[in-house]
Amino acid sequence: MKAGAVELGEVSSKVVAQRRGMNRGASIVDFILRLVAFAGTLGSAIAMGTTDETLPFFTQFIRFKAEYNDLPTFTFFVVANSVVSVYLILSLLLSIYHIVRTGSRSSRVVLIFFDTAMLALVTAGASAASAIVYLAHKGNVRANWFAICQQFNSFCERISGSLIGSFIAMVVIILLILLSAVSISRR
Amino acid sequence: MKAGAVELGEVSSKVVAQRRGMNRGASIVDFILRLVAFAGTLGSAIAMGTTDETLPFFTQFIRFKAEYNDLPTFTFFVVANSVVSVYLILSLLLSIYHIVRTGSRSSRVVLIFFDTAMLALVTAGASAASAIVYLAHKGNVRANWFAICQQFNSFCERISGSLIGSFIAMVVIILLILLSAVSISRR
Repeated sequence: MKAGAVELGEVSSKVVAQRRGMNRGASIVDFILRLVAFAGTLGSAIAMGTTDETLPFFTQFIRFKAEYNDLPTFTFFVVANSVVSVYLILSLLLSIYHIVRTGSRSSRVVLIFFDTAMLALVTAGASAASAIVYLAHKGNVRANWFAICQQFNSFCERISGSLIGSFIAMVVIILLILLSAVSISRR
Repeated sequence: MKAGAVELGEVSSKVVAQRRGMNRGASIVDFILRLVAFAGTLGSAIAMGTTDETLPFFTQFIRFKAEYNDLPTFTFFVVANSVVSVYLILSLLLSIYHIVRTGSRSSRVVLIFFDTAMLALVTAGASAASAIVYLAHKGNVRANWFAICQQFNSFCERISGSLIGSFIAMVVIILLILLSAVSISRR
């Protein structure tokens, strides 16, 4: 009977150790994914923030120049991506804490909440900018909005490309939230 | 010693009962919030989907008419809100299941994942539509896009109003995710 109890104790401590190991693994994946998301948002912010194009012809009064901050939506995109990338760097500290202290749950709940808010922010920035990029490419006949990409070619390529990092970050943050939820449920 | 063990057992069963009660309460709040978010997304989809305006003057060949599907972004907005409202109705079943079975965790993790995906979808729809609504109101001098709201007044009021439900749903879904995370951590 006593031997049975000791065996049971051994088995359960093995299970606990295994779970701890899995949670540590999950925390390391969390850390790496945060770096990926950070690279995505920072890349997007820089790519969009440094975009401008000056056309090679100009009249006496007007120089044809396109900058990202001609359109307020792109300014929002840069701000949103900057905020999220700063948050992601700060959240790395908590991620390291989770690698060390695998059992903590309340800090993971806090992380889920902020991750969710940041997901909303980066999604808002990316999709608002996409809507405008689509308009710049295609224009809209009914609203009489012209496709400015016909003039500003490299400007358009640059703003289209800068969306990619933001969308990658979006997918990665969804994975991060799922990972935190699984870790909490399996402490 | 035995009496102490029984007391301890009573105390811990009380704690368990209390936690169950709290989780049940959280599940009921979850159910109500889902209904609120459903009302928001459905309202947004209907308000946007039924928007059209025909101006009282017309030439021999052209009738000035504005419909939501003149702009692809608004079509996306309607589709995204419809998908999310269908999902919210279906998730009510799982919410009822959580009211009955307060202890289940894996189903809550599944719910967090889908909630997060739906949050991304509704945010994308709402913010893309907002970007276009902003453009319709203000126009953009640099891109030579005119503010169409000067002609289509009631159309613009309608599309602006239809965003509200979507943004309410966004906030409510963030709360839902937080609620699920807290419930999992406190089983």
